[in-house]
Amino acid sequence: MTTKQSTIVYTLTDEAPALATYSLLPIIRTFTDAAGIDVTLSDISLAGRVLAAFPERLTDEQRVADGLAELGELTQDPHANIIKLPNISASVPQLRACIKELQSQGYDVPDFPENPKTDEDKAIREAYTKVLGSAVNPVLRQGNSDRRAPAAVKAFARKYPHSMGAWNKASRSHADYMNGGDFFSSEQSVTMDKAQTVRIEFIGQDGKPQLKKELALQQGEVLDSMFMSAKALESFFEQTLQECKEAGVMWSLHVKATMMKVSHPIVFGHAVKVFYKEVFDKYGKLFDELGVNPNNGMSSVYDKIKSLPQSTQEEIEEAIHDCYEHRPELAMVDSVKGITNLHVPSDVIVDASMPAMIRNSGQMWGRDGKLKDTKAVMPESTYARIYQEVINFCKTNGAFDPRTMGSVSNVGLMAMKAEEYGSHDKTFELTENGTMRVLNEAGEVLMQHDVEKGDIWRACQTKDAAIRDWVKLAVNRARNSDTPAVFWLDDERAHDNELRKKVEHYLQEHDLNGLSIHLMSYNEAIRFSMERMKRGKDTISVTGNVLRDYLTDLFPIMELGTSAKMLSIVPMLAGGGMYETGAGGSAPKHVQQLMEENHLRWDSLGEFLALAVSLEELGIKEGNDRAKVLAACLDKATEQLLDNGKSPSRRAGELDNRGSHFYLAMYWAQELAAQGDDAELAAHFAPLAKSLADNEDKIVSELNAVQGNSAGVQGYYHADPAALEKVMRPSATLNQTLAQLNG
Amino acid sequence: MTTKQSTIVYTLTDEAPALATYSLLPIIRTFTDAAGIDVTLSDISLAGRVLAAFPERLTDEQRVADGLAELGELTQDPHANIIKLPNISASVPQLRACIKELQSQGYDVPDFPENPKTDEDKAIREAYTKVLGSAVNPVLRQGNSDRRAPAAVKAFARKYPHSMGAWNKASRSHADYMNGGDFFSSEQSVTMDKAQTVRIEFIGQDGKPQLKKELALQQGEVLDSMFMSAKALESFFEQTLQECKEAGVMWSLHVKATMMKVSHPIVFGHAVKVFYKEVFDKYGKLFDELGVNPNNGMSSVYDKIKSLPQSTQEEIEEAIHDCYEHRPELAMVDSVKGITNLHVPSDVIVDASMPAMIRNSGQMWGRDGKLKDTKAVMPESTYARIYQEVINFCKTNGAFDPRTMGSVSNVGLMAMKAEEYGSHDKTFELTENGTMRVLNEAGEVLMQHDVEKGDIWRACQTKDAAIRDWVKLAVNRARNSDTPAVFWLDDERAHDNELRKKVEHYLQEHDLNGLSIHLMSYNEAIRFSMERMKRGKDTISVTGNVLRDYLTDLFPIMELGTSAKMLSIVPMLAGGGMYETGAGGSAPKHVQQLMEENHLRWDSLGEFLALAVSLEELGIKEGNDRAKVLAACLDKATEQLLDNGKSPSRRAGELDNRGSHFYLAMYWAQELAAQGDDAELAAHFAPLAKSLADNEDKIVSELNAVQGNSAGVQGYYHADPAALEKVMRPSATLNQTLAQLNG
Repeated sequence: MTTKQSTIVYTLTDEAPALATYSLLPIIRTFTDAAGIDVTLSDISLAGRVLAAFPERLTDEQRVADGLAELGELTQDPHANIIKLPNISASVPQLRACIKELQSQGYDVPDFPENPKTDEDKAIREAYTKVLGSAVNPVLRQGNSDRRAPAAVKAFARKYPHSMGAWNKASRSHADYMNGGDFFSSEQSVTMDKAQTVRIEFIGQDGKPQLKKELALQQGEVLDSMFMSAKALESFFEQTLQECKEAGVMWSLHVKATMMKVSHPIVFGHAVKVFYKEVFDKYGKLFDELGVNPNNGMSSVYDKIKSLPQSTQEEIEEAIHDCYEHRPELAMVDSVKGITNLHVPSDVIVDASMPAMIRNSGQMWGRDGKLKDTKAVMPESTYARIYQEVINFCKTNGAFDPRTMGSVSNVGLMAMKAEEYGSHDKTFELTENGTMRVLNEAGEVLMQHDVEKGDIWRACQTKDAAIRDWVKLAVNRARNSDTPAVFWLDDERAHDNELRKKVEHYLQEHDLNGLSIHLMSYNEAIRFSMERMKRGKDTISVTGNVLRDYLTDLFPIMELGTSAKMLSIVPMLAGGGMYETGAGGSAPKHVQQLMEENHLRWDSLGEFLALAVSLEELGIKEGNDRAKVLAACLDKATEQLLDNGKSPSRRAGELDNRGSHFYLAMYWAQELAAQGDDAELAAHFAPLAKSLADNEDKIVSELNAVQGNSAGVQGYYHADPAALEKVMRPSATLNQTLAQLNG
Repeated sequence: MTTKQSTIVYTLTDEAPALATYSLLPIIRTFTDAAGIDVTLSDISLAGRVLAAFPERLTDEQRVADGLAELGELTQDPHANIIKLPNISASVPQLRACIKELQSQGYDVPDFPENPKTDEDKAIREAYTKVLGSAVNPVLRQGNSDRRAPAAVKAFARKYPHSMGAWNKASRSHADYMNGGDFFSSEQSVTMDKAQTVRIEFIGQDGKPQLKKELALQQGEVLDSMFMSAKALESFFEQTLQECKEAGVMWSLHVKATMMKVSHPIVFGHAVKVFYKEVFDKYGKLFDELGVNPNNGMSSVYDKIKSLPQSTQEEIEEAIHDCYEHRPELAMVDSVKGITNLHVPSDVIVDASMPAMIRNSGQMWGRDGKLKDTKAVMPESTYARIYQEVINFCKTNGAFDPRTMGSVSNVGLMAMKAEEYGSHDKTFELTENGTMRVLNEAGEVLMQHDVEKGDIWRACQTKDAAIRDWVKLAVNRARNSDTPAVFWLDDERAHDNELRKKVEHYLQEHDLNGLSIHLMSYNEAIRFSMERMKRGKDTISVTGNVLRDYLTDLFPIMELGTSAKMLSIVPMLAGGGMYETGAGGSAPKHVQQLMEENHLRWDSLGEFLALAVSLEELGIKEGNDRAKVLAACLDKATEQLLDNGKSPSRRAGELDNRGSHFYLAMYWAQELAAQGDDAELAAHFAPLAKSLADNEDKIVSELNAVQGNSAGVQGYYHADPAALEKVMRPSATLNQTLAQLNG
C-alpha cells in the first residue's frame, strides 16, 4: 500500500521464542506491510553466534552474517527499532551441545577447548568466551530502562485478578537487615572533576600498596566504594537465628547470587557456616580437603561427602540434623524434596522470593509443607528496608487488591553498565587485614576503608551521560503518561547524594511545567507509591539499577501476578529503541513438548506487547500515522485475546501458540477494519477480517489436528528453517488467507 | 533593689500544690524582688470559688475576692503573666465535702440542692454549677497551646534514662481501627463566608425538621460535621474480637471517655455489649429494669445486680464468665484485682495507655499478670493510625532510646474552644433513622448525613482568629527554637483541607526565611518526626486540639517517662501568657500523707519550670534583663536539683517538698552569685548563697525533724493560712536566712 520506508528488526533467538517466530513473523509482516514497515529478521541465536565466530572454517553457503555485531552497530543508529526476544545465556554444557549439533549438520566448527594449550586452542577458547553467558544483553542494552505494565495486561489483571493471600494484622513476619557493618553503612562516593585513571589499591600487613585494579573514568563519572564486614555479617546472622528461635518464626535468607554474582555467594556462604556452625567447626578441615564450598550451599556438602565412607557420611548427616534441633525452622524451597533455603545460593532470589512471600500473606513454606510467619533476612540494608516497609504496609492496610490497585512503573538507570551491575570486576574478598583505597591520577586518596580478612569490598561506576539520559527519560515518561515520577534517592547514601546533585542539575534542562517530579528516600518513595497504589493511582519509580531489578519484579508480581508480562523498553542513548519481550527465559521444556506432542505452549503475549510499543514509537519518531493506528489496534486485539481466553493452553490438542497467533491476527484485522482514523487502512483489512472470522473453526481445527504426534523438527539449536516453517504453519487455510492480502 | 514594675500572678489552688505554695512562694518572692517583680497570689481554690459565689451570705471579714473572675479579666491584658497550678475539677461529692467544711468553719454557704424546686434553690444550684467540674481551664486558657520538654528535664532524662521495653521484630501487637463508618469517613467541613447563625436539624421518619441546636458562627469560622455508624462500630468490634481469638493476641479498647465525654462512653458501651453479647442478649430486659448502663462498663452490671437474689447474681456472673471462654483474652487494667479493660470507661485513656503499651514493648497485662502482645482497638481511625505507625516503627527500628532520642514539642490549636473540645453540646446519639443536616442563615443545606438509630453525630467549631494565632505561634516557635515545624494536616480530612487553606494564607503574614515549615498528613508527620527523633533531632508538631492532647502524652512519655514534666504554656490571644505547672492533678493522697506523717511528697518541679519560663517571657516582653538572668539561673538550679537527687522522697523522714524548695533556693542563689551578666545581682545573692550553703545540714535536719507525726492542719479545702504557713515553713534557720536578704 505504501512505499517501504521504515524497518523494525525482529530477533531470531533460541528455543520456544524462536519456534514461535516462525508462526508469528509472517502474520506481523502481513500487517506492517500496510504501513510501509519492513520487519527484518536478525539471527542472534546461540547457533548463529557460533557460526558467525568461525567464518573461515565454513563454506560460502554455510557462512552467516554476524547478527549480533550488526545489531550492536544498529544500537548507535537513531532509527534503530529492535524487538528482542529471550535468548539462551549459554552455559558450557549448552555450548558443547550446540557445537555437537552443528558438527553433525556438517559445519566444521571446532570443539570447545576445556584446557587450551596451543595458541590455536587459546584463540578458539577466546572466540567461544564471547558467545558464552549473558553475551547478548550487554551488546544491545545501550540505554536506560523503561518498564511498565501494558494497559491490556493491567486491564486483564483487574478483570481476572490473580490470588493474593490475606494479611493478618498480627503477622509476625518481617524483614531484617544489618544496622551497621554492611555496604550501606560504609559507602563513600566521589564524582570525577575530569577524565582520569584511578587506582584501586590494597595495603596489607607489609605496608606495601598492591594494585587491585585500574579504572579509566570519564569526566563527571560517579565512583562509589564500600565494604561489608564479615564479622558483622556473621554476628548479624547469629542474632537473627537466635531471635527466630525465641520468637518461633521461620528463618529465611534472600540474596541475589545470580546478579550480585561475586558478592552474594560469599554472603550466602557465611549464612551456611553460621547456621551449621557445629558442623563446620567439627568437619571444617575435612571439608577443605574435600573441596566443600559453603558459597555453593549445603548441596556442596552433600555432593562432596559422597566420596567418604558410608559411616562418615552418616555421621556428618547426623551432625547436620543436630543443627536443626537448636536452630529455628528454616524456610523451604521445596518441602517435598526437603530442599532448604540454604541448599543452593540461586534458589531464593530476593526480587522474586520477597514478592512471592508478600503474596503468600507474608509467609513461606515450612518443613511440614505449611505456610508460616518468617523472618526474611537480607543482610545488606540499602534495599532490604523497602521490603519491611511493604510488610508493615500490608499488616496495616491488608493485602493489595489486584482489582483496584494502581501501577508502579520504572525508569531505571542502566545505560553504560551503570551502578552495581558493572561491579563484579571491582569486587574483592579480602584475604588479610588492611586498607582498601582509591587514588586519583595525582595519587591523592579519594576514598579509603579499613578492612579485615574476609570482608567484601567493592566499587561501582555510573557514567554522567547515562544519568543525564535517565533524567530525560523520567521527565518524558512523566509527561507522556501524565503520572507523578519519584526519583528514589536516599539522603543517607553517599552514592545517592552525588546523584542528587546531577538529577537536580539535569532536571533544569527540561520543561517541568505541570509535571509532578519528586525526590524521596527509599522508604518515603515506596510508602508514597504504595499509598497511591492502594487508591488506584499510578506512580513512576525512577531508580538505580538494582532497584530497577527489584521493583520491576515486586510491583508487577503484586499487580499482575507475574513480571513476565511487563513491557520492557530500552530507549537507547543514540535515539533508537529496543523492545524486550518479557522475562522468563527461552523455555526449553516448551521445545521438548513440541517435539514430543507437536504442541507449543509458549505464550507470545510479550511479543504482541513489544510489537505494539515498537510500532507506536516508530509512528511517533518517523511520523508514520499508520504505524500508530496499527499499534493502537494491536493493543486492542491483545486485550480481546486475553479477555476471550485465547492464550495458549498447556495441553496438547487444545489451542497452542499457533492458535493464539491466529486469534491475534483475526482480532487485529477486525480492529483495523473497525477503526475510523484511517479509512483506507480499514478498507484494506476488512476482507482479511472477514475471511479469518469466516474460517475460524476450520483454521483452529487445522491447527489443532496436527497435535498429539511428535513434530518433525530436526535439530534443537539449529533446525532446518524449511522444516520449522512447515511445523509452525500447519494451517493451509490460514496461510492462504494471509497470502491473499499480501498478494 | 529595683522599683516594682511587673507582676506575676501565682495561683493558690487546692490540695498538694496549694500546700507547696506556702513553702515555695516566700522563696520565689525573695528572688523576684531583686528584679522588681511582684508575685501576687490569686485564690482560685474550690473553697475560694464557693465563697466568692455567695458574698451576700458572708460577713465583711469572711468575704473574698473572686479570684477566677479577676484572672478571667486579666487574660485580656497583654501584660498578663499567670502561673497556674493544678486545681480540683470538682465532682458533686467533692463539692459537698467542701461546703460542709466551710459551714463547719462558720461560713453560711448553702447546701448543694440535689433537686432544686424553689427559685432560690434553682439559683443556688446555678451558682454551684459554675463551680463544678472543669471550671477553671476554660476561663484561663484564652489562647493556643505551647508544650515542650524543658531543657533541664530533657538533659536529666538523657543522663538517667527511664526504662524502655525492648521491641521484638516478630511482635504481634498492632493498632486497629475502622476502615469506614467512623467519624473520619463521614467528615464534612465548611468555612463561613460571613458571620451567621446556623441550624442543626434532624429529620426523622415523620419528615419534620427538628431543631437540635443553633450556633452563632463568626466569619471565617470552620464548622465540621460527622457521624459514627453504630452498626459499623459493632461489626468492627465483632471482627476484631474474632481476629484476636484466631491469632491468639489480647484485645484491648482505648478511648478517651473523659475528654470525648459524650461520644466515647457510647463507643465504649457498644464494645461492652459486643464482647458480652450473650449476657446482654439474655439479660438485656432485666438490665434495663435494673438501670444497667453499658456505657459505664461492666462495673455497672456488677453494681446493679447486687440488688438481685444471690442465685440470680451467680447465674449472671456465670454467664459473664462463659463469655470469656469464646472471646479472646481481654487486656487487664489491674490483673490482681481482676479489673478488665471493659470495667470502667475512664480506666484506659488512649493518650496515656498507648504510650504505656509502647514503652512496655507493645504489650499489655493479661489475666495472669503477664505482659502479652495485644490488638489495641481504637475505633475512630482519624488519630488511631498514628499509633500503628509508631508500632510499625518500633518493630522495625527497635525501641526509642531516651539517652539519644530527640524531642517532639507541640503547638496546639486550642484557643476559643477550638475543635473537638467544644463539641460536647453538639454531639447527639440518634434515637431513630433519619437525616442530620446543617443549614445556613438562608436555609441552604451546608452539610448533611443519612443516619440510623444509635449513630453518633457531632459538629465541631474552630474560629478563624484562633487559627491565625496558632499559625503565628508555630512560626514563632520554629524561629525561636530553630527547629522544623510540621503542620499535621491530612489530605483526606475535610476539616484539615479547610484548615490548610487558612494555614497557607496566614503563613504568608510571616517572614519564613530560613525556617523549615512543612504541611504533612498525620502518617507522614509522625513518621518524619520519629525518623528525626531516632537521630536525636527535634521537631515541632503543629496540630489540632485532639492531637495536641494525644501527642503531648505520647512523645513526653517516650522521651521523659512522663508527661507531667512538660512545660505547658498558653500564649494568650491578647498577648499575655499563662504558664501551667504540669499535668498530674492536685494529688489528694499527698495531702493525706502530710496530715498523717507531716511529709509532703509533692514535687514542685512543674512550678520551677513554669516560673522560669514566666520570668524569661516577662524579661523579653517588659525588657527586664534581670528577669532573664533570674530565669536562666533558675533553670540551671533546677538542673542541679535533678542531678543531685534533691527531689522529694516518698517516705517520711527523708527530704520532702519543703527540703527540695530549700535546695532550689540554695542552687538558685549560687547560680546568681556565680553568673557574670549582672554583677549587682551577683553581689546581692552572694551572701544568701553562702549562708544557705553554710546552714545546709542544719536547715535540712530542721525540715526533716518535724516529720513522722501528724501535721496540725485544720481543714482540707479551706485550712487556716497561718496554720499552713507554720506547717510548711518549719525551718527557723531557713526562714531567717531568707528574711535577712529581704530585709
